[in-house]
Amino acid sequence: MPQLRKNPVTREWVVIAVERSKRPSDFVHDEENPTDRAPWVESCPFCPGNEHMTPPAVLAYRNADPSEPMDGQGWWVRVVPNKYPALAIEGGLGKLGVGMYDLMNGVGAHEVIIECPQHNLTIETMSHEQVVDIIWAYRDRYVDLNNDERFEYIMFFRNYGKRAGASLEHPHSQLIATPMVPIEVLQELEGCQRYYEFRDRCPYCDMIRQELDDGERMVCENDEFVAFEPFASKFPFETWVVPKRHSPSFINMSPGEVECFAAMLRDVLGRLARCLNCPPYNYSLFTAPCKADPASAKFHHWHVKIMPRLSIAAGFEMGTGIYINVSAPEDAAAFLRAAEEKPEQHFAVIAGG
Amino acid sequence: MPQLRKNPVTREWVVIAVERSKRPSDFVHDEENPTDRAPWVESCPFCPGNEHMTPPAVLAYRNADPSEPMDGQGWWVRVVPNKYPALAIEGGLGKLGVGMYDLMNGVGAHEVIIECPQHNLTIETMSHEQVVDIIWAYRDRYVDLNNDERFEYIMFFRNYGKRAGASLEHPHSQLIATPMVPIEVLQELEGCQRYYEFRDRCPYCDMIRQELDDGERMVCENDEFVAFEPFASKFPFETWVVPKRHSPSFINMSPGEVECFAAMLRDVLGRLARCLNCPPYNYSLFTAPCKADPASAKFHHWHVKIMPRLSIAAGFEMGTGIYINVSAPEDAAAFLRAAEEKPEQHFAVIAGG
Repeated sequence: MPQLRKNPVTREWVVIAVERSKRPSDFVHDEENPTDRAPWVESCPFCPGNEHMTPPAVLAYRNADPSEPMDGQGWWVRVVPNKYPALAIEGGLGKLGVGMYDLMNGVGAHEVIIECPQHNLTIETMSHEQVVDIIWAYRDRYVDLNNDERFEYIMFFRNYGKRAGASLEHPHSQLIATPMVPIEVLQELEGCQRYYEFRDRCPYCDMIRQELDDGERMVCENDEFVAFEPFASKFPFETWVVPKRHSPSFINMSPGEVECFAAMLRDVLGRLARCLNCPPYNYSLFTAPCKADPASAKFHHWHVKIMPRLSIAAGFEMGTGIYINVSAPEDAAAFLRAAEEKPEQHFAVIAGG
Repeated sequence: MPQLRKNPVTREWVVIAVERSKRPSDFVHDEENPTDRAPWVESCPFCPGNEHMTPPAVLAYRNADPSEPMDGQGWWVRVVPNKYPALAIEGGLGKLGVGMYDLMNGVGAHEVIIECPQHNLTIETMSHEQVVDIIWAYRDRYVDLNNDERFEYIMFFRNYGKRAGASLEHPHSQLIATPMVPIEVLQELEGCQRYYEFRDRCPYCDMIRQELDDGERMVCENDEFVAFEPFASKFPFETWVVPKRHSPSFINMSPGEVECFAAMLRDVLGRLARCLNCPPYNYSLFTAPCKADPASAKFHHWHVKIMPRLSIAAGFEMGTGIYINVSAPEDAAAFLRAAEEKPEQHFAVIAGG
């Protein structure tokens, strides 16, 4: 019998369709392994030496005299405006009504975080230190853009693989700053508030406690973070990374927490890559809105949602918002728990492809 | 400058990214034209003669003595339970809490409406009479399943093409009856109510008036229906079909309205097929919940959303719910308006492939 499970925050139901079920190994993806690619690609706008192919950098971590132009080489993380931005950085909001409809200028920021100079790495094959610096770059860009009065939200996300919407291979994440709180974030916040008003506790703090107790959906944990498959997973192998300490925004992380967050991202994405052969995925970082009411801090708990793209949402999902998931999160979690990194396996991926 | 536009019902903002824009003709799809396929396929479980390959029919329109077994040939519309149902028809709800989480048995109905005997037709290449009978089959199944006290909602949808999640070629739609009102429908209803409370009018009635007045997003109309590209289209060539008469449920259609609805579906899907070369799409039919409060009838207006699958939602869309649409609905509408059916074109599709 399939099960209907409810997301305690968003009220979304999902179908866990065990009758239609696939074994975790049925999801193994046959996409090219990035480690088989060249470490430098002449035509890639994100590879070193091609800095002129992107708009000028807004941030670069590099070993260079600060007086040197920022768009030289020698960087290890580089952030540039998106060459084809979804939103434009210049101009006022120009809010307007047209009859019954509301619109405004598409003002915002759309930037690309070029995560490392090497073309063929992934978060899990980068060094720990490199991933730590990516997180610091996220934080630096957040702090800078947060000064812009027009912005209400800054969303960091990563598209990996063609099926997840990535058009470039070179390792990168993106951010988009928007002049309103996006509907998904609004509904998430409203859900957290509803839960808090009902139970006087943060839903994510409750989730962490229950997942650590139950254990069956746990993927891994370290000193500061847990990773688990959510009870009402919309997608096969959906994985959430949540800080143990209640905090509304990722920018409040201590340096020690940044280290643990980077370690956790590498660990979880490494397990997914080893289990499913580098599947396409998206991740999104849910953090507090720029102008969040301080009172909302007690019920908002930042986190990352990793969504492998192993299935296609069709008319039913699009019409109802009820996702049919053919993989029980408990099975996915067991598979991912067993995929703990073994140094020799990791070496095999790097060396043998 | 890109534009941010708000859906007046759901509060969803979309980015109309004219800078990233493509011409309507850039979306032309290169999938196989169904009319090039054989009209009968030996291995297809929905082709006549293969009735034993599906579960027994729950409805068949046919020229046959009613005493003959329902699963014989001679049918022109046939409805069967899905062989791999997402939800199971037998059993109670068994609502249950597990710690902080809520779940219930995956009880529901999942049926396939086999729309015609021919393997290689589409809604737009079927006869008008055939499409009328598909609508009657939707209605008959709705009325029957509505008697089941466990069901709160019945969603009809159609997946066309592999990229839209269709696993079988033979023309078919599906229905899923769920034991709760799905979140998308709930949010739509809440949005309609919010609008009604604010303006004392139904938002879809307002939309019809404004779209007919403006004209620039109109695709076509007939006596009873309008089709337009929504102001805040999430997807390139997203098209809504809305009845002119305010009515909460499609089952209240008069026979004349059913005729007009069938004509409108054929017209709109024909334009999309001619403009974009049979693009993959999903459509979903939004109608009132089974146990809708009669007071909600004044603000709920049934309609169909057609969503061509010409782009990939990535991390930004999934995280924020803000869709980036690279085609302005006004451009798409102009393209579709110009694609009025010409008899000779239609003939060419049928005859020449």
